[in-house]
Amino acid sequence: MRTMLEKAGNPEVEVVLWDGSVITTATAPVSVRAHIRNRSTLYKLLFDPSLYFGDGYSLGTIEVEGGLVEFNEAIDQGTHKVDTQGFYRDRFRTSLSWLKRNTIDAARHNIHHHYDIGNDFYQLWLDEQLAYTCAYFPDPDDTLEAAQIAKMDHVCRKVGLKPGDSVVEAGCGWGALAIHMAKHYGVNVRAFNISREQLAYARERARREGLEKQVEFVEDDWRNITGSYDSFVSVGMLEHVGLKNYEELGRVIARCQRPHGRGLIHSIGCNSPRVLDSWTTKRIFPGAHVPSLSEFMRIFEPQKFSVLDVENIRLHYARTLEHWLERYEQNIDQVRDMFDETFIRTWRLYLSASVAAFRAGSLQLFQVVFTNGANNEIPWTRAGLYQDRESGSVEG
Amino acid sequence: MRTMLEKAGNPEVEVVLWDGSVITTATAPVSVRAHIRNRSTLYKLLFDPSLYFGDGYSLGTIEVEGGLVEFNEAIDQGTHKVDTQGFYRDRFRTSLSWLKRNTIDAARHNIHHHYDIGNDFYQLWLDEQLAYTCAYFPDPDDTLEAAQIAKMDHVCRKVGLKPGDSVVEAGCGWGALAIHMAKHYGVNVRAFNISREQLAYARERARREGLEKQVEFVEDDWRNITGSYDSFVSVGMLEHVGLKNYEELGRVIARCQRPHGRGLIHSIGCNSPRVLDSWTTKRIFPGAHVPSLSEFMRIFEPQKFSVLDVENIRLHYARTLEHWLERYEQNIDQVRDMFDETFIRTWRLYLSASVAAFRAGSLQLFQVVFTNGANNEIPWTRAGLYQDRESGSVEG
Repeated sequence: MRTMLEKAGNPEVEVVLWDGSVITTATAPVSVRAHIRNRSTLYKLLFDPSLYFGDGYSLGTIEVEGGLVEFNEAIDQGTHKVDTQGFYRDRFRTSLSWLKRNTIDAARHNIHHHYDIGNDFYQLWLDEQLAYTCAYFPDPDDTLEAAQIAKMDHVCRKVGLKPGDSVVEAGCGWGALAIHMAKHYGVNVRAFNISREQLAYARERARREGLEKQVEFVEDDWRNITGSYDSFVSVGMLEHVGLKNYEELGRVIARCQRPHGRGLIHSIGCNSPRVLDSWTTKRIFPGAHVPSLSEFMRIFEPQKFSVLDVENIRLHYARTLEHWLERYEQNIDQVRDMFDETFIRTWRLYLSASVAAFRAGSLQLFQVVFTNGANNEIPWTRAGLYQDRESGSVEG
Repeated sequence: MRTMLEKAGNPEVEVVLWDGSVITTATAPVSVRAHIRNRSTLYKLLFDPSLYFGDGYSLGTIEVEGGLVEFNEAIDQGTHKVDTQGFYRDRFRTSLSWLKRNTIDAARHNIHHHYDIGNDFYQLWLDEQLAYTCAYFPDPDDTLEAAQIAKMDHVCRKVGLKPGDSVVEAGCGWGALAIHMAKHYGVNVRAFNISREQLAYARERARREGLEKQVEFVEDDWRNITGSYDSFVSVGMLEHVGLKNYEELGRVIARCQRPHGRGLIHSIGCNSPRVLDSWTTKRIFPGAHVPSLSEFMRIFEPQKFSVLDVENIRLHYARTLEHWLERYEQNIDQVRDMFDETFIRTWRLYLSASVAAFRAGSLQLFQVVFTNGANNEIPWTRAGLYQDRESGSVEG
């Protein structure tokens, strides 16, 4: 156990065993500790710390004292201290992950696993429009609702939507962005998703708001996008695409985005190539991969797209997740009416560890704006993104 | 010749031979044509079009009608049309370029070749502060002088300079940015350069402005940077570093930038890995390489730096170069007093082809802001870059 902590960069935590003995490599008094309830949990931990810490926590054979976010943050900060030789090891492991193909069938299965567990559940802790991606807080004290709207406006401004434009959205969740673009920017949207529950919700909302003619929700994979559009927009789908399919994604974009259009991909990322921890990829997001920027570029470089703007809003995702976690805990009784205790603890850990990862810098959030390499119809500066922010959308 | 034009994507140009015969693959009437004066120039062109177009133009065995910028732009636009299979060929050729090492000695030779040909010459066509890098025009109609100051402020704001900070600058040219930072932001700067003529000018200017205590100009290679600083800044040096040395550059930055500091690298780049044309690397910038963003990331990813912001201001470089070319032609008589006609034509072609390359999208200009992966002392949004722009610098 001590060796494991050393390998993990000596995080400022303590591990307390079932017999009361304390294991730590911390050099100062710590405020967070994990309690391991039995020997078999310890053995599993030594075998695959990420997977069995998660599973142990879910099952209650591991308890955490001093805050679940804080414990995970201490672990992540330890990992950062481990030397950069990890770069080559991680790059090698990432290259192995190419063996996993997110085929259309596998993608459908993976997406169903996470997103089709009930809209009611997500309504308990997301914002009122069910935007399940990083918000953008012009002011850190903005409400989650305001920050999700600001994020949508930020995206619309970055791709420069004009009334009458056509937009294709890959991975549209519950449809918040598609509907926002149609309603406030006067554009026509075709939005693709393979989560049936999300689509049913999105279609119903579009119908209710009288936007069925402007927004078409399509139940299909991004690989099957056809047609030609002014903008390709994708917010929070790339994480599920799989590294091996990035070049294909680039070809799809090149095929469907018009020469003068600007596109945007918004995705969780990381600072150097790595594979996600085993717990996240087994229990939370099967098939997920979060790209470093060099990996991200595999979408654009083969097509000679011009990357115009990359913004990293990592701390905004920490803030977003803090809101989600707070709402989750506030509504925990209602979650308990829907799911068992293992589920409750799994999702508590997932949200808490995610807050920690974005705070500690283990994860990033990239928004990348790109266009055809020969397109000169691009904004002269980015100043327009920061004008009249208070008034919300610029058109519509 | 016709085959060569086809391979080059059928650019909208004509080639007129010494006997008056016209070769073209253009589909519409063209406004630009090249005249080839003799047979040996044609043969050389077929062997290495880039190198011998340049050499032929310099020597006057090739003349261009309809505008040198416009001719080059038509050529570049043709190249874009060539299919994207070129990606793999170019990536292979780029990997071969790793064989070239820009050692300290080679770097010194290469830099001397371009930058030590006389400050008087550069004074004829650069701005009054001799900033020989892409300017930033908040308004496209700004003067070159104003745009170079705006560029320096843009850089200083991006790295968040505060009075009393220390900055190391790698590749400082004639010292404009180092002096600007010291004078307007109250920081202490150590600026490295291996061009002796530039350094002599920079030191004299710092002395004249009473800034010797705040700005130290060091005649040494970036590999020999020592000490610890709040910010690492490099504007227009990366082009000379050589792809093989990017990881070493990252290690130097990791060694010398403090954990809470932000750094910035400003460099010409391209949309996908490629080698520069043979004329540019033989006659203008020996040892030069312009990175794609995935290549750029080789500086940051092994060190697990967090990339916060990438801005592509390609069209600003086209504008900058238009100013330089215009001043160059305005002062051509004075250039003629210093150099022979071959030199004059070489530099005319270099400036014109560069305008064309940035206009056509063959070259990009990236500003990349980065920091230590665990640093949370980062700006909440980028809005601060766009406030009170008119008033110039924010401090000092």
